[in-house]
Amino acid sequence: MKIDEISTPALIVDVAAMDRNIRHMADFFATGPCRLRPHFKAHKTPEIARRQLAAGSCTGLTCATVWEAEIAAEFCDDVLLANEVIGPGKCERVAALARRIQITVAVDSPQGIESLDQAAKAAGVLIGALVDLDVGQRRCGVQPGREAVLLAHRIAGSGNLTLRGVMGYEGHLVALENRADREARTRAAIERLADTARLIRADDLPCDIVSCGGTGTYDISSRVEGVTEVQAGSYVLMDSDYGRLHLPFEQAFWVLGTVVSRPEPTRCVADAGHKSQTKDHGLPTAPDLPGAEVVSLNDEHATIRIPADSVVKVGDRVRLRPSHTDPTINLHDSVYAIDGDRVVDVWPVAARGYAEHRYNPST
Amino acid sequence: MKIDEISTPALIVDVAAMDRNIRHMADFFATGPCRLRPHFKAHKTPEIARRQLAAGSCTGLTCATVWEAEIAAEFCDDVLLANEVIGPGKCERVAALARRIQITVAVDSPQGIESLDQAAKAAGVLIGALVDLDVGQRRCGVQPGREAVLLAHRIAGSGNLTLRGVMGYEGHLVALENRADREARTRAAIERLADTARLIRADDLPCDIVSCGGTGTYDISSRVEGVTEVQAGSYVLMDSDYGRLHLPFEQAFWVLGTVVSRPEPTRCVADAGHKSQTKDHGLPTAPDLPGAEVVSLNDEHATIRIPADSVVKVGDRVRLRPSHTDPTINLHDSVYAIDGDRVVDVWPVAARGYAEHRYNPST
Repeated sequence: MKIDEISTPALIVDVAAMDRNIRHMADFFATGPCRLRPHFKAHKTPEIARRQLAAGSCTGLTCATVWEAEIAAEFCDDVLLANEVIGPGKCERVAALARRIQITVAVDSPQGIESLDQAAKAAGVLIGALVDLDVGQRRCGVQPGREAVLLAHRIAGSGNLTLRGVMGYEGHLVALENRADREARTRAAIERLADTARLIRADDLPCDIVSCGGTGTYDISSRVEGVTEVQAGSYVLMDSDYGRLHLPFEQAFWVLGTVVSRPEPTRCVADAGHKSQTKDHGLPTAPDLPGAEVVSLNDEHATIRIPADSVVKVGDRVRLRPSHTDPTINLHDSVYAIDGDRVVDVWPVAARGYAEHRYNPST
Repeated sequence: MKIDEISTPALIVDVAAMDRNIRHMADFFATGPCRLRPHFKAHKTPEIARRQLAAGSCTGLTCATVWEAEIAAEFCDDVLLANEVIGPGKCERVAALARRIQITVAVDSPQGIESLDQAAKAAGVLIGALVDLDVGQRRCGVQPGREAVLLAHRIAGSGNLTLRGVMGYEGHLVALENRADREARTRAAIERLADTARLIRADDLPCDIVSCGGTGTYDISSRVEGVTEVQAGSYVLMDSDYGRLHLPFEQAFWVLGTVVSRPEPTRCVADAGHKSQTKDHGLPTAPDLPGAEVVSLNDEHATIRIPADSVVKVGDRVRLRPSHTDPTINLHDSVYAIDGDRVVDVWPVAARGYAEHRYNPST
């Protein structure tokens, strides 16, 4: 199959560029005590995750949802669910996974510990737990220091959870454009995480995992003394938002569209709207069209301003470079893996959406 | 099944509220020459579309993609594909539909006419065509007046297309908050559409359909002399963006989340991020939580500012009111239809995404 035969809009991945990104990151983590645990939520695509693991330097995978962890467990034996797990049936599903793989879950509340502990007890398994710390993002997580140590004691004192360490995500810093600023603030945030790990160990509790980091900060966080693994995800495919940061990774994915209208010389419209690529980090770019600017995305339309002398015409194909990897890929059921103009494979985005609503809608 | 047993995040629809919206709109169109052709793209859910058709006053359904039309054709015999159809295989799929149902496609270019005509010829069918007019939105569509009449002649002169009329979507006006402004500008825009229909008829060409309108303008556009049908979609479920306009429709859908963290008294976090509800029209609201404000959406998190004395706790359920119906529903595989706290049915969002990438990933 040629790329020209793909029905649009479609998600395409340049396999060679993606493999270079994977290689570069694996090489970065090949030496030194800190390892990589790629975030599966970025692409939800088992074939991509398998390549990340095969490249080496990885401790396993990071996931954001139980469903992602269930898919990851099919090919990975060590999963960090870097998120609070609360709600009907979810801890039970984690306990079921704990029978087959090493699974570790972030917790930040006594209720979270209790429900996970009960599910582990009922299933007769041990589940790993990390204390989730707020390193400044102000989302989930307890404060570093004493509050975190208390929660660590509570995990250690539960009957069926194994305290494995701490995590904190510096999500408020990963996209800071000024490198010096990003570096200084990330180091300060992650040092508080590492300090908390030392406090926990000083209380004679185990704390083997100190996890943090994203694509914008992997080379900063990983060098803070005591950090054991980094959760970066977007690096593998990249987006135009991270593209601003001059990172050593290439744009490896695109949304392919078809020009469906050129109603006036300075405007064309492609069939790739925000049901195929999100605009939460800004509008996509259209680098194949000289002088072009995407001016709006509607459900099924990307409206593009073009120079009046542009040769673009109805039926032409156009690659759009999305602003945000994770939610864009979540809109698609498949990834077209390409080599030049040839489709070499089609990979299911197996962990897209929420499985419980896909397969078991029993009332 | 009770609503408390649903795994979150989940899309829930209040069936009674939805049915009232459907009833109100059907009653509005029950008299007068203008009819309703509900837009299937708003919800992509056959069960909802069936109820819209059953309520009466409808000429058929409006769709935005070939895939939506293919799903709609399973239960509706008159579909308007109110969008340009261009690209590999798409006109052929429309021609296949034309064997089973009345299908009409918007066109705005000679290339669009030619490819549709060829596909119709190859399949031995007639396909209906509308001239797509730009009534001010500046997306697709030719200018009203002479340019549109020329395109109408070209359709009429093709061998295998049937000229059925004109359409224009006043998408730039549907959400104007000032009613007088919305009314005056909509009337002016749609009068240009109706005038063009008269010009086409003056050239002895058929022009039976004059289609336009959205949820914010249905009662304005439908009263412009000559308009024959309105494409409104969002009215059936409503969102907080249209909620600003004081329309006679109720919020009938929600994203249900679970509170997974309350890391400080004035903040809680629910497991319903922008992979379950888009923020392109703004952040959702959380009307069940007194004094609460959603301050950010990440992939899997809604961070909510709450009063320090709020009784909300980890494990509580929270309904979030999305800002934009169409792209939010496109994120989900199923709709939980509820009556009070009881789940009465689960409806597949059958037209979600792009089918060609779901079922036929052949290389």
